[in-house]
Amino acid sequence: MKLATVQLEARTAVAIETATGKVAIMPRHYPDVDTLIQSRDDWRTEAEETLRSGAQYATEALNWLPPVVRPGKVLCVALNNSANPDRIISGPQTPAMFVKPSSSLVGHCHPIIVKDAYGRVHPEPELAVVVGRGGADIPVESATDHVFGYTIMNDITSPTMRGEDTFHYRAIHPAPGNPDGVRYVESWVSYPARYKGSDTFGPMGPWVVTSDDIPNPHALNVRCSHDGRVITDDTTANLRFSVAEVIAFTSSYLTLDAGDVIAMGTALRPSAKGGAVQNVDLTLLGGTIEVAIERIGTLSNPVEHR
Amino acid sequence: MKLATVQLEARTAVAIETATGKVAIMPRHYPDVDTLIQSRDDWRTEAEETLRSGAQYATEALNWLPPVVRPGKVLCVALNNSANPDRIISGPQTPAMFVKPSSSLVGHCHPIIVKDAYGRVHPEPELAVVVGRGGADIPVESATDHVFGYTIMNDITSPTMRGEDTFHYRAIHPAPGNPDGVRYVESWVSYPARYKGSDTFGPMGPWVVTSDDIPNPHALNVRCSHDGRVITDDTTANLRFSVAEVIAFTSSYLTLDAGDVIAMGTALRPSAKGGAVQNVDLTLLGGTIEVAIERIGTLSNPVEHR
Repeated sequence: MKLATVQLEARTAVAIETATGKVAIMPRHYPDVDTLIQSRDDWRTEAEETLRSGAQYATEALNWLPPVVRPGKVLCVALNNSANPDRIISGPQTPAMFVKPSSSLVGHCHPIIVKDAYGRVHPEPELAVVVGRGGADIPVESATDHVFGYTIMNDITSPTMRGEDTFHYRAIHPAPGNPDGVRYVESWVSYPARYKGSDTFGPMGPWVVTSDDIPNPHALNVRCSHDGRVITDDTTANLRFSVAEVIAFTSSYLTLDAGDVIAMGTALRPSAKGGAVQNVDLTLLGGTIEVAIERIGTLSNPVEHR
Repeated sequence: MKLATVQLEARTAVAIETATGKVAIMPRHYPDVDTLIQSRDDWRTEAEETLRSGAQYATEALNWLPPVVRPGKVLCVALNNSANPDRIISGPQTPAMFVKPSSSLVGHCHPIIVKDAYGRVHPEPELAVVVGRGGADIPVESATDHVFGYTIMNDITSPTMRGEDTFHYRAIHPAPGNPDGVRYVESWVSYPARYKGSDTFGPMGPWVVTSDDIPNPHALNVRCSHDGRVITDDTTANLRFSVAEVIAFTSSYLTLDAGDVIAMGTALRPSAKGGAVQNVDLTLLGGTIEVAIERIGTLSNPVEHR
């Protein structure tokens, strides 16, 4: 089943894709997919009833919101593509993650806003997991039971701000053998709030596809296009850590809650004709960015330079 | 006025400190300080009425929650202490930040949970701002008008996980002069979700003190103690970027919402007797960590090794 959160006049509502490519609107007690996931109701029976008897709308008329409007957290896995090991001089053997604030999320068709002060800004096409049932210390064997569904995230990134918010510094560490002594260790540390979390840096949607409709999340083509030109043509088979591995590992540190989103890491393989997503400087080029993932849909966002 | 969110049997409630050091409980339509901030009601009139006529409780009987239970985002400013410039070889001239997930927050007296797999874990005592009125592009001159109040954050940090989640790698950058060409640039990048955001890594509270009671947030003593021994004895006068500067800068990238929390950066100056917070390895030492900030209160959390 394909679900979305949409703005309908003064209210928000859950939309379901119909067999003919229109949408039907769920009853008002589900103002968004967040509420539907968190309710323990039998929402599927209501959804089927809505598909049978509800008013239907053309998708062109919709104002799309992020399908999960305000996730408790949005975790993003870094450098999780099999094309990466060649590039990594040293790094973790487990999934490394950052948090994207929910204030950065925008829906399908809403603009990605860039400013000159942002420097270079590029798209990153990603499969994202929407957590259905929360938990801590989730075993890898049952990890996918915790998935509500899958959506698309465009993990907008400013490498200019990443460079600016990196410190080369002397970190304070304890001195061996002296409980009050310290030593300075030359280190690098970078902070992602701005370069990953600025407003509109999280286009997400249009749909959440429930997990029963995606039996294998590791066999999905991922394409990223700029003004119709295909840049990235990859598959989720190239993810280094799987959905189950990421859920199991993450939940042994951070309790996952219903409605949390985990973006699985950038699809990287350039198309036959394309360059790299890093060549698509949205601040310079503007245009429209599309991320299409097989079985989920196409997330399209125009760039607006302010 | 000093406000807290507390658990009262099966519900949560807003507590207010009374003149005699007890607490009075606000009416049920404020289940937490989050709701009180987001309501545009005249909550102060209700609070004064509660102080006059409400039932009073001893603070010892309370189960303290994070005063803002589920902030939209928790931003933390890194390396924001005047003791830092000596240690910084290169770094930004503006506030650098990361996002701490709200799932990591715990209230006063609740345990900080550590595990052997976390490696070293240390406390970081910080003044935190609770946003009252949201906004984007907030001018520095009126920035403090957006502050609801101030609280205490213990920004628990695992330097072991920080090291593990750091990549030394070849970043992909556009090649100059070739729109599809790339070049590899040796870089360092670190990802804070685990090392700053694991469960219980965000003790916060006990109180939010409204901004009218703290006319100058840059004149507050900050102390951090481990099992009664004072480690840090600093003042918010040593913050490099002020509350107003941080709000103005941040809001030009990330829209601030009512209830958002901004932790202002670690107070660093060691006490006359103490070592550094980096010497206080909670995984090794256990014990109880207290952060006391003048005019706000004392946040105390025992360490529990699992």
